[in-house]
Amino acid sequence: MAWLFERVAVVGVGLIGGSLALAARRAGLISHVTGVGRSEANLATARARGIIDRATRDVEAIGPVDLVVLAVPVETTAIVARALVPRLAPGTVVTDVGSVKGVIVEALEALLPPTCPFVGTHPIAGSERSGAAAAEVDLFQDACCVITPTPRTDAAALERVEALWRGVGARVRRMAPADHDRALAWTSHLVHALAYTLAGAINAEDPSRFALAGPSLREATRVAASLPELWRDIFLANRTAVNEAITTFSSQLERLRAAIAAGDGDAIARLLEAGRAGRRRLESER
Amino acid sequence: MAWLFERVAVVGVGLIGGSLALAARRAGLISHVTGVGRSEANLATARARGIIDRATRDVEAIGPVDLVVLAVPVETTAIVARALVPRLAPGTVVTDVGSVKGVIVEALEALLPPTCPFVGTHPIAGSERSGAAAAEVDLFQDACCVITPTPRTDAAALERVEALWRGVGARVRRMAPADHDRALAWTSHLVHALAYTLAGAINAEDPSRFALAGPSLREATRVAASLPELWRDIFLANRTAVNEAITTFSSQLERLRAAIAAGDGDAIARLLEAGRAGRRRLESER
Repeated sequence: MAWLFERVAVVGVGLIGGSLALAARRAGLISHVTGVGRSEANLATARARGIIDRATRDVEAIGPVDLVVLAVPVETTAIVARALVPRLAPGTVVTDVGSVKGVIVEALEALLPPTCPFVGTHPIAGSERSGAAAAEVDLFQDACCVITPTPRTDAAALERVEALWRGVGARVRRMAPADHDRALAWTSHLVHALAYTLAGAINAEDPSRFALAGPSLREATRVAASLPELWRDIFLANRTAVNEAITTFSSQLERLRAAIAAGDGDAIARLLEAGRAGRRRLESER
Repeated sequence: MAWLFERVAVVGVGLIGGSLALAARRAGLISHVTGVGRSEANLATARARGIIDRATRDVEAIGPVDLVVLAVPVETTAIVARALVPRLAPGTVVTDVGSVKGVIVEALEALLPPTCPFVGTHPIAGSERSGAAAAEVDLFQDACCVITPTPRTDAAALERVEALWRGVGARVRRMAPADHDRALAWTSHLVHALAYTLAGAINAEDPSRFALAGPSLREATRVAASLPELWRDIFLANRTAVNEAITTFSSQLERLRAAIAAGDGDAIARLLEAGRAGRRRLESER
């Protein structure tokens, strides 16, 4: 049997890295997985769950592999890549799974030698949970995975990385890194900013009101349980686009607020209809 | 067997009214249900699903009942009550399930004769769906139901209405109508304002971005599929509190935006930690 990538190193065996290893192994795409991480306990969990075969805390000790998956926080990706470069055998494909692509793709294309092709990816899946314990073999089933090639991207490596994502059930979509970042600022980063702000604002006003939470508040704040460091880094790495998305969103919210304050039922209804039309469009996508 | 309310009229056999009838019937709390509504098709669905025994489109034709449940949109509640008053037999308990309590409780206490005690309630449950087809027998299981008595509320009727909600699985909580409205402006009305605005803003920017929707955007916009007329009426009926909640939320969101625009990682992290603390508090409630 021919593996897509026989030996794989997953740097950061968390929710995304761990789920990818689990799913790719089940699909018969990869054979041997070395997990790299800072936490012994998390690596032990990853071994116990069959996510990785071998664990190391030293990124320089990964040994020869066919694929390196960088699944660490956005701000850490280039730092880890820099440490890896001297150890990478020619032909090793490097990929990442970061939620922001512009800064990562630029940094890694500059860092990696031409013999180690880089392909940036972002699987749009996950949850507020983290660590190897949260990994799920079906996490990417029917999820969208954005691949962000550039003119410098090696065509063969691109095909293999796309085959990996398709093999774990994702719908693959190619986008330029900057286009990805502008779109995700709206569809994900803004959503997290709203969730954190909503949970924080209610807590500051009167936390006893959480006792009145219905399904809508529970859903709207679920991702506010995500790790703040991860999201601080994402906001910083996609600062311009996130700033624009929040600004535009706020001006739209202000229109609704003004209509409510003025008691303008027609204006309120128009804004809500526009929102409902958007939601219908979302539901029609797949 | 003694019924809690033997004969019940449900005016508005939608998601909430229909689910209450289904659940109360299964729990053996009520016997005969007359459904009142404008849509023949919806009433036929309600009969076919065993939600109601008898259907009428004429609220004046409900006949003698022990309980009237007003489960119509917020702005319609007082209009329906006004039409009902001449037909209500002494001793009939009247309740409503509206998402705003101040205006409804005030109007109904003024409209109804002292022989027909009124108890305002708000079960915090539901979904973006509507109509008898959407009714679910377990909708209120473990949900919070706010009961909003006033000094004028009849004690015996209050106990019976609370028993009804407990009997269908809800956790009952008493609050003054104005306190309910201020709290719900935050925990529900603001959440819906954000969902509609988010879905509408992405649609206006670039609807193709919905193809990149992950779980967080799907959850955050789910309730934007709700009926705009219902929510227009709720926003209008709770105008002052909703305006305040949106204003405070917006100023908090502006703090996060400014921190991101300034690249101030520490300020971002503090705001996200505050949001995460709120979400933890929500999770600890039940």
